[in-house]
Amino acid sequence: MIIVQKYGGTSVADLDRIRNVASRVKATRDAGNKVVVVVSARAGVTNRLIADAKSLAEHPDSRELDMLASIGEQETIALTAIALHSMGVPAVSRTGAQVGIKTDSEFTKARIVDITGGDLNKQLDEGKVVIVAGFQGVTDDGQITTLGRGGSDLSAIALAKAVNADVCQIYTDVDGVYTADPRVVKDASKLNEISYDEMLELASLGSKVMQARSVEFAKKHNVVFEVRSSMNNNPGTIVKEEVASMEDVVVRGVAADKNQTKVVLLGLNDQPGTAAKIFNALGKANVNVDMIVQNVGRDGIANMTFTVPTDDAFKAEKAIDSIKDDIAAKNFRTMTDRVAKVSVVGIGMRSHSGVAADLFTAFANAGINIQLISTSEIKISVAVEVEKADEAVRVAHAAFGLGQA
Amino acid sequence: MIIVQKYGGTSVADLDRIRNVASRVKATRDAGNKVVVVVSARAGVTNRLIADAKSLAEHPDSRELDMLASIGEQETIALTAIALHSMGVPAVSRTGAQVGIKTDSEFTKARIVDITGGDLNKQLDEGKVVIVAGFQGVTDDGQITTLGRGGSDLSAIALAKAVNADVCQIYTDVDGVYTADPRVVKDASKLNEISYDEMLELASLGSKVMQARSVEFAKKHNVVFEVRSSMNNNPGTIVKEEVASMEDVVVRGVAADKNQTKVVLLGLNDQPGTAAKIFNALGKANVNVDMIVQNVGRDGIANMTFTVPTDDAFKAEKAIDSIKDDIAAKNFRTMTDRVAKVSVVGIGMRSHSGVAADLFTAFANAGINIQLISTSEIKISVAVEVEKADEAVRVAHAAFGLGQA
Repeated sequence: MIIVQKYGGTSVADLDRIRNVASRVKATRDAGNKVVVVVSARAGVTNRLIADAKSLAEHPDSRELDMLASIGEQETIALTAIALHSMGVPAVSRTGAQVGIKTDSEFTKARIVDITGGDLNKQLDEGKVVIVAGFQGVTDDGQITTLGRGGSDLSAIALAKAVNADVCQIYTDVDGVYTADPRVVKDASKLNEISYDEMLELASLGSKVMQARSVEFAKKHNVVFEVRSSMNNNPGTIVKEEVASMEDVVVRGVAADKNQTKVVLLGLNDQPGTAAKIFNALGKANVNVDMIVQNVGRDGIANMTFTVPTDDAFKAEKAIDSIKDDIAAKNFRTMTDRVAKVSVVGIGMRSHSGVAADLFTAFANAGINIQLISTSEIKISVAVEVEKADEAVRVAHAAFGLGQA
Repeated sequence: MIIVQKYGGTSVADLDRIRNVASRVKATRDAGNKVVVVVSARAGVTNRLIADAKSLAEHPDSRELDMLASIGEQETIALTAIALHSMGVPAVSRTGAQVGIKTDSEFTKARIVDITGGDLNKQLDEGKVVIVAGFQGVTDDGQITTLGRGGSDLSAIALAKAVNADVCQIYTDVDGVYTADPRVVKDASKLNEISYDEMLELASLGSKVMQARSVEFAKKHNVVFEVRSSMNNNPGTIVKEEVASMEDVVVRGVAADKNQTKVVLLGLNDQPGTAAKIFNALGKANVNVDMIVQNVGRDGIANMTFTVPTDDAFKAEKAIDSIKDDIAAKNFRTMTDRVAKVSVVGIGMRSHSGVAADLFTAFANAGINIQLISTSEIKISVAVEVEKADEAVRVAHAAFGLGQA
């Protein structure tokens, strides 16, 4: 088999952990596999480099930041190859440029446009383990780029596609994807498999296992991957295209995002175009809006509520303030309040009705007040008091029978 | 003018020094010049990386060592570019590969075979300062190489050739090339100029300003360069092809190498071929032999004396021992003794006679015993007791009137 393994910064944080990674890679190769390893920078290295850059210039040039940051992974690939050699394993390191991870020129957040693979297959055929620097690529004119947050996962999935790998393993510090955060829900259980769409909803809903872009890339190119721990040999969670049997499970998992702020606009002018003006202004300010509710107007006055990430709340208020004269009726006011967004996710919802009713009933029985609701084809999200978030997750988790058998 | 400036590891050791380098570069550009800057890794960085590699494997693979070591310079180029930006200077960093410093595949000590320059001239024409990573290159098939000791000087001189620079400045922690080591000779004076051949002799004789290979490259490609300090604005020493006026100065400088060992072979078989056997054996053992003296034999027995670098002395004794039966007559013995090699250098010697006589007279008057002598067209070297080395340098320096006026 051809296996791609990705190890993050914590897994290669020091020389002992690099040896540990090398041992795992050796075991995989000794079992008769061709192995491509993707590694991140050692934990803390990238941050130190960026801090140096920022102490030289308030806003360092993004091209130079990529030139700088990319050395973190280059350090790890060489050290990992050397560790493998010391165990008698033939191995060779490759930068992103050397395996032809071609990107656009959006430095610090480049997008992969193509992967040539360089001499990857040749090296694998010669029995060598190839250690590739994650997180980095190269433009058509030879400039070094980085892929932004979660970039090494993306490198691994893209390389799995390029070498037509049988297995792509994303090693991390958790055992896989859980039905809920095990720190919140004691009987949360690890999922054996999950569909791309479910994983995408969980990623965007505050379950921090992987960035959505890597999952999107995997879905687009149909790369099956596994999220698993580098600290043990437990099987992890397989992420793949949905199969019919997945629909038997109505709710796959429950996630909570506690960094949401509810923005309430009272006393709006109830005329066509008011909503458009509001969301145009928010869009221009790069505010990510979610969970919109507009109340039916009375006497020409309407109210509107939506949520934004708490980091964007101030920007949102400023944007609203800038168009106040255009949208305000009598007694216009803006109110903000921190909320938590609790979501249940499952592709089974497409073919099962009554999920929302079951969820709302469970919350009502537990005395949890629902402030806002938004739904998609495979997800129901509700905004609740931040203080009630953990309880709401536990209630939802129990309501859909997600606990360990 | 097009100016290439090279700054070594001490000059870019920390962020403050990188700012200092950026200020100097800015001043050079503000004076209307096109500037290419070659930088080394921050002092200590390369050693730390190599130490990490050696703690993972006793003999790390040389290809991986180059992958690893090359990040030191990549860090410096990005930080230097960012420092220049913060001063409002347009600047762009380039790795060795990006400016097409093509080398052979002798990892950790690669030789430059070609320099394409990449987009260097285009960037310069656009008014940008280009910061190039010294010490590194790339093979034809895209593998990262390093050039070995003194590699950044070599990068600078090679780039000066590639862009047809008007000036190539090698910034270091000394003011230039002196007539003798100022720590030994109080009135040693800085040379305004020196020929390649003189510089080569001084480099190989233990004057540590530059590695001989960089000077050889400059001589071969006729690149004029200046050795000067990054701590002040004093003019340094210009190194260039000799001109007629240089011959007026008989002795340019005095150097001492205290790491020499004298090997004396007593009781050799005085037959044709004995010397050949000895130096073949030493050559096979990679021992660098210097200052050979063979005494005329008597009664079929000869003696021979030569010097080797002290680090090679043990290897030399072993090599001699391995062929003992082939070369020994009665009472064969090997004796070794540490010595210092003191040399006077000057292309003026070619056209001036009597230099050796003047030197030996001065030593005799000072009571310094000469153990061995070797000469070249532009150099006279003598081996003396290590304890007398500094005094011998001072005596020679005074004898040829090299002190400051």
